[in-house]
Amino acid sequence: MENFNNYLKIINEAIAGIDLKQQPQNLYLPIAYSLGMGGKRLRPVLTLAACDLFGGDIKNALNAAVGLEIFHNFTLVHDDIMDAAPLRRGEKTVYKKWDSNVAILSGDTMFAIALQQITNTGHPKLKDVLQVFIQTAIEVCEGQQFDMDFENRSDVSISEYLEMIRLKTAVLLGASLKIGALLANAGEDQTRLIYDFGINAGIAFQLKDDWLDAFGDEAKFGKSIGGDIVANKKTFLYLKCLELANPTDRELLIQLFGSSHSSKHNKVDQVLDLFEKYRIKEATIQEMEKFFGMSIRSINQVDAPVEKKNMLSGFAEMLYKRDK
Amino acid sequence: MENFNNYLKIINEAIAGIDLKQQPQNLYLPIAYSLGMGGKRLRPVLTLAACDLFGGDIKNALNAAVGLEIFHNFTLVHDDIMDAAPLRRGEKTVYKKWDSNVAILSGDTMFAIALQQITNTGHPKLKDVLQVFIQTAIEVCEGQQFDMDFENRSDVSISEYLEMIRLKTAVLLGASLKIGALLANAGEDQTRLIYDFGINAGIAFQLKDDWLDAFGDEAKFGKSIGGDIVANKKTFLYLKCLELANPTDRELLIQLFGSSHSSKHNKVDQVLDLFEKYRIKEATIQEMEKFFGMSIRSINQVDAPVEKKNMLSGFAEMLYKRDK
Repeated sequence: MENFNNYLKIINEAIAGIDLKQQPQNLYLPIAYSLGMGGKRLRPVLTLAACDLFGGDIKNALNAAVGLEIFHNFTLVHDDIMDAAPLRRGEKTVYKKWDSNVAILSGDTMFAIALQQITNTGHPKLKDVLQVFIQTAIEVCEGQQFDMDFENRSDVSISEYLEMIRLKTAVLLGASLKIGALLANAGEDQTRLIYDFGINAGIAFQLKDDWLDAFGDEAKFGKSIGGDIVANKKTFLYLKCLELANPTDRELLIQLFGSSHSSKHNKVDQVLDLFEKYRIKEATIQEMEKFFGMSIRSINQVDAPVEKKNMLSGFAEMLYKRDK
Repeated sequence: MENFNNYLKIINEAIAGIDLKQQPQNLYLPIAYSLGMGGKRLRPVLTLAACDLFGGDIKNALNAAVGLEIFHNFTLVHDDIMDAAPLRRGEKTVYKKWDSNVAILSGDTMFAIALQQITNTGHPKLKDVLQVFIQTAIEVCEGQQFDMDFENRSDVSISEYLEMIRLKTAVLLGASLKIGALLANAGEDQTRLIYDFGINAGIAFQLKDDWLDAFGDEAKFGKSIGGDIVANKKTFLYLKCLELANPTDRELLIQLFGSSHSSKHNKVDQVLDLFEKYRIKEATIQEMEKFFGMSIRSINQVDAPVEKKNMLSGFAEMLYKRDK
């Protein structure tokens, strides 16, 4: 993972080097705070990796990579308002540290700064890059809206759920890779393959997130098990269990997810018992493997040096096999 | 104004022709609602007019013009959340008709759709157009933040106020003109002149807005006089009066703007009395005339057929001389 650590370093230096204005303070301090929270910088790392995969110079992709990370952070700032989330990466969210208005407006400005970074890409493919980025930005908003809509719906299907996580999470990973490939002048079939790799790996990552919430090792996971269950989140696990359960257990599961009355541990334990009864752990692994397998098949078809492809698929595997 | 009515028709047809998706409904219905509210479509009309002024084909500028109008509507959707505004153009605002979360996310999507329209501009100057647009988007956010900050400050200067309205209102008018000029391949000095025309006319328009709120004819204005006074808005009128008043009247004015206790009419009447005593009506006209005069001097220097320049300055004069 030598290269990937190097990419991360380059990204973090570029983000730290952005010359944000000072005034108005209530606009720019929250932006600096959000960008300074760190994180895995997964999206820009993938942009640089895809650019290198196709023989491009990663310097050509750095502006776009940074723009994609700023865009991702913008979505987090706005999502945290909508989800009333007090904490992110252990720190207060922008909307909690300041207020909703500050979070709305500094988020809007981050969207514009993201775009500024991407537009600074001095490359003949700029229009293609922008079209991928804009299409993705719209899809990410659609994914967030579907996610919010699902909270009030009792008839969400597994395919709708998979489509929601594709939009909310996977398309930005796919786009980050595709934009790196475009900036290395990769051809259309190649950019499609690397996009598909990102989409399917992204869906597998999100299913893994759901899985860890219920079946992770609490000590390694770093937060308590069952957060999604407590929050009545209709994850793949819940939807699969609804599909497999007998009518009585189905009723029980719906009832457990319909109320916040049952004491926390009791509720989590009851749901986990149902998950065990219907082998949801195994069913989820099967689904994850399906998407992860598709992602590997896509990257294997890419026309690039095998050691570079192995680096990228190894990186994806490391993320996929994570236990926290 | 024949041409301008024609531009408005073209713009409204283009906006009505945008093929918005249907799903998710909670994302796209609010967007259709916001874009369907109408309004003067001032920004896109100026884009087409500037393109024509420099001999360009307005078809080349139509996508960008529509994008600028969608961007403007996005800022209104988010501003209405921040300002807790229940009504816009006599209709419920998006955040009141749905909720804040819907308004945040559909606004974000409108920003992306605005960008999509602008990027669809198939023109060699696309990168220049985008750079003007992005710089402007950032400045509009800065203007809104300064406006919100001023609510909690008692030491706002007139020059700070003028800078705030430049950012919040004037730069988007200037950018709409400049982008039209760029798409007609106007040179750098010409695009600067038309931008300056928009900036100074924009500041004059906003000062006229402030002026109408205090000195307009209630019957023509269509809303009650003194809305800004009731809301304790620190407009040019208030700041100029603070500057000119003797210490006793200054204290009284600060006290009137510091409380919501005094009954509405009494407060408005007392403030209007102070405005009369210190000839604020005339002082504001003088300031407006200064900016409007600068705008006319800029457009007169433009290298374009005089009848086209007269059309555009006549349009600006009509807006400036409005009594509602």
